[in-house]
Amino acid sequence: MRQYPRTLNILINELGKLPGIGEKMAQRLAFHILSITDREAENLSGAISNAKKSLRYCEVCGNLTDREKCRICEDESRETNVICVVESPQDVMAMERVREFRGRYHVLHGTISPMDGVGPNDLNLASLVIRLQAEPDVKELILATNPNIEGEATAMYIARLLKDTGIRITRLAHGLPIGGDLEYADEETLLKAIEGRREL
Amino acid sequence: MRQYPRTLNILINELGKLPGIGEKMAQRLAFHILSITDREAENLSGAISNAKKSLRYCEVCGNLTDREKCRICEDESRETNVICVVESPQDVMAMERVREFRGRYHVLHGTISPMDGVGPNDLNLASLVIRLQAEPDVKELILATNPNIEGEATAMYIARLLKDTGIRITRLAHGLPIGGDLEYADEETLLKAIEGRREL
Repeated sequence: MRQYPRTLNILINELGKLPGIGEKMAQRLAFHILSITDREAENLSGAISNAKKSLRYCEVCGNLTDREKCRICEDESRETNVICVVESPQDVMAMERVREFRGRYHVLHGTISPMDGVGPNDLNLASLVIRLQAEPDVKELILATNPNIEGEATAMYIARLLKDTGIRITRLAHGLPIGGDLEYADEETLLKAIEGRREL
Repeated sequence: MRQYPRTLNILINELGKLPGIGEKMAQRLAFHILSITDREAENLSGAISNAKKSLRYCEVCGNLTDREKCRICEDESRETNVICVVESPQDVMAMERVREFRGRYHVLHGTISPMDGVGPNDLNLASLVIRLQAEPDVKELILATNPNIEGEATAMYIARLLKDTGIRITRLAHGLPIGGDLEYADEETLLKAIEGRREL
Protein backbone atom coordinates (compact mmCIF):
# COMPACT_ATOMS: atom_id res chain seq x y z
CA MET A 1 0.00 0.00 0.00
CA ARG A 2 1.03 3.54 -0.69
CA GLN A 3 1.85 5.50 2.47
CA TYR A 4 1.82 8.97 1.00
CA PRO A 5 0.06 11.96 2.58
CA ARG A 6 -3.68 11.94 1.86
CA THR A 7 -3.78 14.71 -0.76
CA LEU A 8 -0.97 13.04 -2.68
CA ASN A 9 -2.83 9.72 -2.65
CA ILE A 10 -5.90 11.49 -3.98
CA LEU A 11 -3.87 13.10 -6.77
CA ILE A 12 -2.32 9.73 -7.73
CA ASN A 13 -5.77 8.12 -7.74
CA GLU A 14 -7.25 10.85 -9.96
CA LEU A 15 -4.34 10.68 -12.41
CA GLY A 16 -4.62 6.88 -12.47
CA LYS A 17 -8.20 7.16 -13.75
CA LEU A 18 -6.93 8.65 -17.03
CA PRO A 19 -6.73 6.22 -19.96
CA GLY A 20 -3.33 4.59 -20.43
CA ILE A 21 -2.00 5.86 -17.08
CA GLY A 22 -1.04 3.03 -14.71
CA GLU A 23 -0.07 3.22 -11.04
CA LYS A 24 3.65 3.85 -11.65
CA MET A 25 2.97 6.50 -14.27
CA ALA A 26 0.36 8.18 -12.03
CA GLN A 27 2.94 8.38 -9.22
CA ARG A 28 5.52 9.77 -11.61
CA LEU A 29 3.10 12.43 -12.88
CA ALA A 30 2.02 13.31 -9.32
CA PHE A 31 5.61 13.85 -8.18
CA HIS A 32 6.27 15.87 -11.30
CA ILE A 33 3.30 18.08 -10.44
CA LEU A 34 4.68 18.55 -6.92
CA SER A 35 8.00 19.61 -8.41
CA ILE A 36 6.69 22.31 -10.75
CA THR A 37 5.85 25.84 -9.61
CA ASP A 38 2.46 26.72 -8.14
CA ARG A 39 1.81 28.83 -11.24
CA GLU A 40 2.52 25.92 -13.59
CA ALA A 41 0.26 23.62 -11.58
CA GLU A 42 -2.52 26.23 -11.63
CA ASN A 43 -2.11 26.47 -15.41
CA LEU A 44 -2.69 22.73 -15.67
CA SER A 45 -5.66 22.52 -13.29
CA GLY A 46 -7.09 25.72 -14.80
CA ALA A 47 -6.76 24.34 -18.33
CA ILE A 48 -8.83 21.33 -17.28
CA SER A 49 -11.56 23.47 -15.71
CA ASN A 50 -11.60 26.01 -18.53
CA ALA A 51 -11.76 23.40 -21.27
CA LYS A 52 -14.69 21.71 -19.51
CA LYS A 53 -16.46 25.03 -18.99
CA SER A 54 -15.95 26.63 -22.40
CA LEU A 55 -16.22 23.75 -24.85
CA ARG A 56 -19.49 22.65 -26.36
CA TYR A 57 -20.74 21.14 -29.58
CA CYS A 58 -21.45 23.23 -32.70
CA GLU A 59 -25.23 23.66 -33.00
CA VAL A 60 -25.02 22.94 -36.73
CA CYS A 61 -22.61 20.02 -37.12
CA GLY A 62 -21.77 18.76 -33.63
CA ASN A 63 -18.06 19.56 -33.89
CA LEU A 64 -16.24 20.89 -30.82
CA THR A 65 -16.30 24.66 -30.43
CA ASP A 66 -16.11 27.37 -27.83
CA ARG A 67 -18.74 29.45 -29.64
CA GLU A 68 -22.24 28.65 -30.96
CA LYS A 69 -20.98 27.48 -34.33
CA CYS A 70 -17.63 25.84 -35.02
CA ARG A 71 -15.06 27.62 -37.15
CA ILE A 72 -15.71 25.35 -40.13
CA CYS A 73 -19.45 26.03 -40.16
CA GLU A 74 -18.72 29.75 -39.81
CA ASP A 75 -16.20 29.71 -42.67
CA GLU A 76 -18.08 31.04 -45.71
CA SER A 77 -15.34 29.86 -48.07
CA ARG A 78 -16.21 26.21 -47.39
CA GLU A 79 -18.29 24.38 -49.99
CA THR A 80 -21.94 24.00 -49.05
CA ASN A 81 -22.75 21.13 -51.42
CA VAL A 82 -20.93 18.34 -49.62
CA ILE A 83 -21.01 17.14 -46.01
CA CYS A 84 -18.58 14.65 -44.53
CA VAL A 85 -20.09 12.50 -41.76
CA VAL A 86 -17.60 11.44 -39.08
CA GLU A 87 -17.75 9.77 -35.70
CA SER A 88 -15.88 12.31 -33.58
CA PRO A 89 -14.31 15.79 -33.48
CA GLN A 90 -10.91 14.05 -33.62
CA ASP A 91 -11.92 12.65 -37.01
CA VAL A 92 -12.77 16.18 -38.22
CA MET A 93 -9.21 17.19 -37.35
CA ALA A 94 -7.80 14.12 -39.12
CA MET A 95 -9.72 15.09 -42.27
CA GLU A 96 -8.66 18.73 -42.00
CA ARG A 97 -5.00 17.80 -41.82
CA VAL A 98 -5.20 16.34 -45.35
CA ARG A 99 -6.30 19.74 -46.78
CA GLU A 100 -8.20 17.95 -49.57
CA PHE A 101 -11.78 18.23 -48.37
CA ARG A 102 -13.32 21.72 -48.58
CA GLY A 103 -16.91 20.93 -47.59
CA ARG A 104 -18.38 20.81 -44.12
CA TYR A 105 -18.88 18.10 -41.51
CA HIS A 106 -21.46 16.35 -39.42
CA VAL A 107 -20.23 14.69 -36.24
CA LEU A 108 -22.21 11.65 -35.05
CA HIS A 109 -20.55 11.33 -31.62
CA GLY A 110 -20.43 7.57 -31.85
CA THR A 111 -21.52 4.66 -34.00
CA ILE A 112 -24.39 2.25 -33.94
CA SER A 113 -23.25 -0.52 -31.62
CA PRO A 114 -25.95 -2.90 -30.35
CA MET A 115 -23.34 -4.62 -28.12
CA ASP A 116 -22.89 -1.37 -26.19
CA GLY A 117 -26.59 -0.52 -26.33
CA VAL A 118 -26.00 2.37 -28.76
CA GLY A 119 -28.75 2.73 -31.36
CA PRO A 120 -29.32 5.33 -34.13
CA ASN A 121 -31.27 7.54 -31.72
CA ASP A 122 -28.23 7.89 -29.47
CA LEU A 123 -26.23 9.49 -32.30
CA ASN A 124 -26.29 13.08 -33.59
CA LEU A 125 -28.26 11.78 -36.59
CA ALA A 126 -31.77 13.26 -36.39
CA SER A 127 -30.11 16.67 -36.67
CA LEU A 128 -28.48 15.54 -39.94
CA VAL A 129 -31.87 14.69 -41.48
CA ILE A 130 -33.24 18.09 -40.44
CA ARG A 131 -30.08 19.79 -41.66
CA LEU A 132 -30.36 18.22 -45.11
CA GLN A 133 -33.89 19.56 -45.41
CA ALA A 134 -32.70 23.04 -44.41
CA GLU A 135 -29.69 22.92 -46.75
CA PRO A 136 -31.00 21.97 -50.20
CA ASP A 137 -27.54 22.79 -51.69
CA VAL A 138 -26.11 19.54 -50.37
CA LYS A 139 -25.50 17.17 -53.28
CA GLU A 140 -23.16 14.66 -51.64
CA LEU A 141 -22.73 13.04 -48.27
CA ILE A 142 -19.36 11.38 -47.64
CA LEU A 143 -19.70 8.71 -44.96
CA ALA A 144 -16.33 8.72 -43.20
CA THR A 145 -17.11 6.53 -40.22
CA ASN A 146 -14.28 4.24 -39.16
CA PRO A 147 -13.50 1.17 -41.31
CA ASN A 148 -14.60 -1.35 -38.69
CA ILE A 149 -17.80 -3.28 -38.01
CA GLU A 150 -19.62 -0.50 -36.16
CA GLY A 151 -18.48 2.16 -38.62
CA GLU A 152 -19.57 0.10 -41.62
CA ALA A 153 -22.92 -0.71 -40.02
CA THR A 154 -23.49 2.97 -39.25
CA ALA A 155 -22.60 3.96 -42.82
CA MET A 156 -25.02 1.35 -44.20
CA TYR A 157 -27.74 2.56 -41.84
CA ILE A 158 -27.32 6.20 -42.92
CA ALA A 159 -27.16 5.21 -46.61
CA ARG A 160 -30.49 3.38 -46.28
CA LEU A 161 -32.02 6.15 -44.19
CA LEU A 162 -31.26 8.79 -46.87
CA LYS A 163 -31.73 6.58 -49.95
CA ASP A 164 -34.79 8.48 -51.18
CA THR A 165 -33.42 12.01 -50.76
CA GLY A 166 -31.60 11.94 -54.12
CA ILE A 167 -28.39 13.01 -52.41
CA ARG A 168 -25.28 11.18 -53.64
CA ILE A 169 -23.99 9.06 -50.78
CA THR A 170 -20.35 7.97 -50.85
CA ARG A 171 -18.01 6.09 -48.56
CA LEU A 172 -14.29 6.62 -48.06
CA ALA A 173 -12.35 4.03 -50.10
CA HIS A 174 -10.88 1.11 -48.22
CA GLY A 175 -7.38 2.38 -48.47
CA LEU A 176 -7.89 2.63 -44.72
CA PRO A 177 -6.73 -0.50 -42.89
CA ILE A 178 -9.72 -2.53 -41.69
CA GLY A 179 -10.01 -2.57 -37.92
CA GLY A 180 -8.00 0.65 -37.71
CA ASP A 181 -8.89 4.03 -36.36
CA LEU A 182 -9.47 7.02 -38.64
CA GLU A 183 -8.01 9.36 -36.08
CA TYR A 184 -4.58 7.75 -36.40
CA ALA A 185 -4.47 7.23 -40.18
CA ASP A 186 -1.48 8.80 -41.88
CA GLU A 187 -2.31 11.65 -44.22
CA GLU A 188 -1.34 9.84 -47.43
CA THR A 189 -3.63 6.90 -46.72
CA LEU A 190 -6.42 9.27 -45.84
CA LEU A 191 -5.85 11.25 -49.06
CA LYS A 192 -6.09 8.02 -51.10
CA ALA A 193 -9.28 7.18 -49.28
CA ILE A 194 -10.83 10.54 -50.12
CA GLU A 195 -9.85 10.27 -53.80
CA GLY A 196 -11.16 6.70 -54.15
CA ARG A 197 -14.50 7.22 -52.43
CA ARG A 198 -17.25 5.12 -54.09
CA GLU A 199 -21.02 5.25 -54.51
CA LEU A 200 -23.07 3.27 -51.99
CA MET B 1 -1.08 22.43 -36.90
CA ARG B 2 -3.90 21.60 -34.57
CA GLN B 3 -7.12 23.48 -35.35
CA TYR B 4 -8.95 22.85 -32.12
CA PRO B 5 -10.79 25.55 -30.16
CA ARG B 6 -8.41 27.65 -28.07
CA THR B 7 -9.19 26.20 -24.64
CA LEU B 8 -8.74 22.68 -25.99
CA ASN B 9 -5.37 23.62 -27.49
CA ILE B 10 -4.35 25.05 -24.12
CA LEU B 11 -5.39 21.85 -22.35
CA ILE B 12 -3.46 19.69 -24.84
CA ASN B 13 -0.40 21.93 -24.43
CA GLU B 14 -0.54 21.74 -20.63
CA LEU B 15 -0.95 17.94 -20.64
CA GLY B 16 1.89 17.66 -23.16
CA LYS B 17 4.25 19.31 -20.66
CA LEU B 18 3.93 16.30 -18.33
CA PRO B 19 6.83 13.81 -18.47
CA GLY B 20 6.27 10.88 -20.81
CA ILE B 21 3.19 12.45 -22.41
CA GLY B 22 3.61 13.09 -26.15
CA GLU B 23 1.35 15.00 -28.50
CA LYS B 24 -0.91 12.04 -29.38
CA MET B 25 -1.26 10.99 -25.74
CA ALA B 26 -1.97 14.60 -24.69
CA GLN B 27 -4.76 14.78 -27.28
CA ARG B 28 -6.14 11.44 -26.11
CA LEU B 29 -6.13 12.60 -22.47
CA ALA B 30 -7.72 15.95 -23.40
CA PHE B 31 -10.58 14.29 -25.25
CA HIS B 32 -11.00 11.88 -22.37
CA ILE B 33 -11.30 14.84 -19.99
CA LEU B 34 -13.94 16.39 -22.27
CA SER B 35 -15.88 13.12 -22.16
CA ILE B 36 -16.04 12.73 -18.37
CA THR B 37 -18.55 14.54 -16.17
CA ASP B 38 -17.93 18.07 -14.88
CA ARG B 39 -17.71 16.60 -11.38
CA GLU B 40 -15.01 14.12 -12.39
CA ALA B 41 -13.02 16.84 -14.13
CA GLU B 42 -13.31 19.07 -11.04
CA ASN B 43 -12.03 16.16 -8.92
CA LEU B 44 -8.96 15.96 -11.14
CA SER B 45 -8.22 19.68 -11.30
CA GLY B 46 -9.01 20.02 -7.59
CA ALA B 47 -6.65 17.16 -6.70
CA ILE B 48 -3.84 19.00 -8.50
CA SER B 49 -4.53 22.28 -6.69
CA ASN B 50 -5.05 20.65 -3.29
CA ALA B 51 -1.90 18.55 -3.51
CA LYS B 52 0.11 21.64 -4.42
CA LYS B 53 -1.47 23.68 -1.60
CA SER B 54 -1.32 21.13 1.20
CA LEU B 55 1.93 19.29 0.63
CA ARG B 56 5.21 20.49 2.04
CA TYR B 57 8.47 19.03 3.27
CA CYS B 58 8.87 17.66 6.81
CA GLU B 59 10.81 20.24 8.83
CA VAL B 60 12.94 17.46 10.32
CA CYS B 61 13.78 15.11 7.47
CA GLY B 62 12.53 16.73 4.26
CA ASN B 63 10.06 13.93 3.46
CA LEU B 64 6.70 14.89 1.94
CA THR B 65 3.95 15.63 4.44
CA ASP B 66 0.76 17.59 4.86
CA ARG B 67 1.68 18.51 8.45
CA GLU B 68 4.78 20.05 10.04
CA LYS B 69 6.46 16.70 10.59
CA CYS B 70 6.04 13.63 8.40
CA ARG B 71 4.38 10.54 9.82
CA ILE B 72 7.70 8.72 10.14
CA CYS B 73 9.33 11.50 12.20
CA GLU B 74 6.20 11.64 14.38
CA ASP B 75 6.16 7.87 14.91
CA GLU B 76 7.73 7.33 18.36
CA SER B 77 8.14 3.59 17.72
CA ARG B 78 10.81 4.27 15.07
CA GLU B 79 14.44 3.78 16.06
CA THR B 80 16.29 7.03 16.76
CA ASN B 81 19.83 5.66 16.36
CA VAL B 82 19.87 5.23 12.59
CA ILE B 83 19.04 7.58 9.75
CA CYS B 84 18.71 6.52 6.12
CA VAL B 85 19.70 9.24 3.64
CA VAL B 86 17.79 9.12 0.35
CA GLU B 87 17.44 11.32 -2.70
CA SER B 88 13.66 11.71 -2.83
CA PRO B 89 10.36 11.07 -1.02
CA GLN B 90 9.72 8.31 -3.58
CA ASP B 91 12.82 6.56 -2.26
CA VAL B 92 11.45 6.79 1.30
CA MET B 93 8.38 4.92 0.08
CA ALA B 94 10.53 2.31 -1.71
CA MET B 95 12.42 1.71 1.58
CA GLU B 96 9.19 1.55 3.58
CA ARG B 97 7.73 -1.11 1.29
CA VAL B 98 10.53 -3.52 2.33
CA ARG B 99 9.46 -3.30 6.01
CA GLU B 100 13.05 -4.02 7.10
CA PHE B 101 14.26 -0.58 8.08
CA ARG B 102 12.82 0.82 11.33
CA GLY B 103 14.89 3.99 11.69
CA ARG B 104 14.17 7.41 10.24
CA TYR B 105 15.09 9.21 7.02
CA HIS B 106 16.74 12.27 5.64
CA VAL B 107 15.69 13.35 2.15
CA LEU B 108 18.31 15.22 0.10
CA HIS B 109 16.01 16.31 -2.74
CA GLY B 110 18.59 15.59 -5.37
CA THR B 111 22.21 14.56 -5.82
CA ILE B 112 25.43 16.39 -6.43
CA SER B 113 25.60 16.79 -10.19
CA PRO B 114 28.12 19.32 -11.53
CA MET B 115 26.82 18.73 -15.08
CA ASP B 116 23.43 20.11 -14.00
CA GLY B 117 24.96 22.80 -11.81
CA VAL B 118 23.81 21.09 -8.59
CA GLY B 119 26.31 21.34 -5.75
CA PRO B 120 26.17 20.22 -2.08
CA ASN B 121 24.61 23.54 -1.07
CA ASP B 122 21.63 22.88 -3.33
CA LEU B 123 20.75 19.73 -1.38
CA ASN B 124 18.94 19.34 1.95
CA LEU B 125 22.32 18.57 3.52
CA ALA B 126 23.18 21.44 5.90
CA SER B 127 20.05 20.44 7.85
CA LEU B 128 21.46 16.92 8.20
CA VAL B 129 24.64 18.22 9.83
CA ILE B 130 22.60 20.34 12.26
CA ARG B 131 20.24 17.43 12.88
CA LEU B 132 23.10 15.08 13.79
CA GLN B 133 24.29 17.62 16.39
CA ALA B 134 20.77 17.84 17.84
CA GLU B 135 20.28 14.08 17.84
CA PRO B 136 23.28 12.55 19.64
CA ASP B 137 21.49 9.16 19.65
CA VAL B 138 22.30 8.63 16.00
CA LYS B 139 24.94 5.91 15.67
CA GLU B 140 24.59 5.03 12.01
CA LEU B 141 23.87 6.81 8.76
CA ILE B 142 22.84 4.58 5.83
CA LEU B 143 23.59 6.32 2.54
CA ALA B 144 20.88 5.07 0.19
CA THR B 145 21.42 7.38 -2.75
CA ASN B 146 20.91 5.79 -6.17
CA PRO B 147 23.59 3.37 -7.46
CA ASN B 148 24.68 5.62 -10.33
CA ILE B 149 27.47 8.18 -10.79
CA GLU B 150 25.70 11.09 -9.08
CA GLY B 151 24.41 8.92 -6.24
CA GLU B 152 27.85 7.42 -5.59
CA ALA B 153 29.50 10.84 -5.71
CA THR B 154 26.94 12.23 -3.28
CA ALA B 155 27.46 9.30 -0.90
CA MET B 156 31.25 9.79 -1.03
CA TYR B 157 30.82 13.51 -0.37
CA ILE B 158 28.60 12.92 2.67
CA ALA B 159 30.92 10.19 3.99
CA ARG B 160 33.88 12.60 3.83
CA LEU B 161 31.86 15.46 5.29
CA LEU B 162 30.88 13.41 8.37
CA LYS B 163 34.11 11.39 8.69
CA ASP B 164 35.09 13.00 12.00
CA THR B 165 31.71 12.73 13.74
CA GLY B 166 32.32 9.12 14.85
CA ILE B 167 29.01 8.08 13.36
CA ARG B 168 29.09 4.78 11.48
CA ILE B 169 28.47 5.53 7.81
CA THR B 170 27.24 2.71 5.59
CA ARG B 171 26.15 2.36 2.00
CA LEU B 172 23.49 0.04 0.60
CA ALA B 173 25.14 -3.05 -0.90
CA HIS B 174 25.45 -3.22 -4.63
CA GLY B 175 22.75 -5.75 -5.03
CA LEU B 176 21.10 -2.83 -6.74
CA PRO B 177 21.72 -2.85 -10.48
CA ILE B 178 24.21 -0.10 -11.40
CA GLY B 179 22.63 2.65 -13.45
CA GLY B 180 19.21 1.73 -12.08
CA ASP B 181 16.76 3.70 -10.06
CA LEU B 182 16.12 2.96 -6.37
CA GLU B 183 12.49 3.90 -6.72
CA TYR B 184 11.83 1.02 -9.12
CA ALA B 185 13.93 -1.68 -7.39
CA ASP B 186 12.01 -4.84 -6.51
CA GLU B 187 11.66 -5.45 -2.80
CA GLU B 188 13.87 -8.55 -2.68
CA THR B 189 16.81 -6.75 -4.28
CA LEU B 190 16.32 -3.84 -1.93
CA LEU B 191 16.17 -6.21 1.07
CA LYS B 192 19.48 -7.79 -0.01
CA ALA B 193 20.95 -4.35 -0.37
CA ILE B 194 19.92 -3.38 3.18
CA GLU B 195 21.30 -6.63 4.66
CA GLY B 196 24.62 -6.34 2.81
CA ARG B 197 25.29 -2.68 3.57
CA ARG B 198 29.02 -2.02 4.08
CA GLU B 199 31.22 0.42 5.98
CA LEU B 200 32.50 3.41 4.01
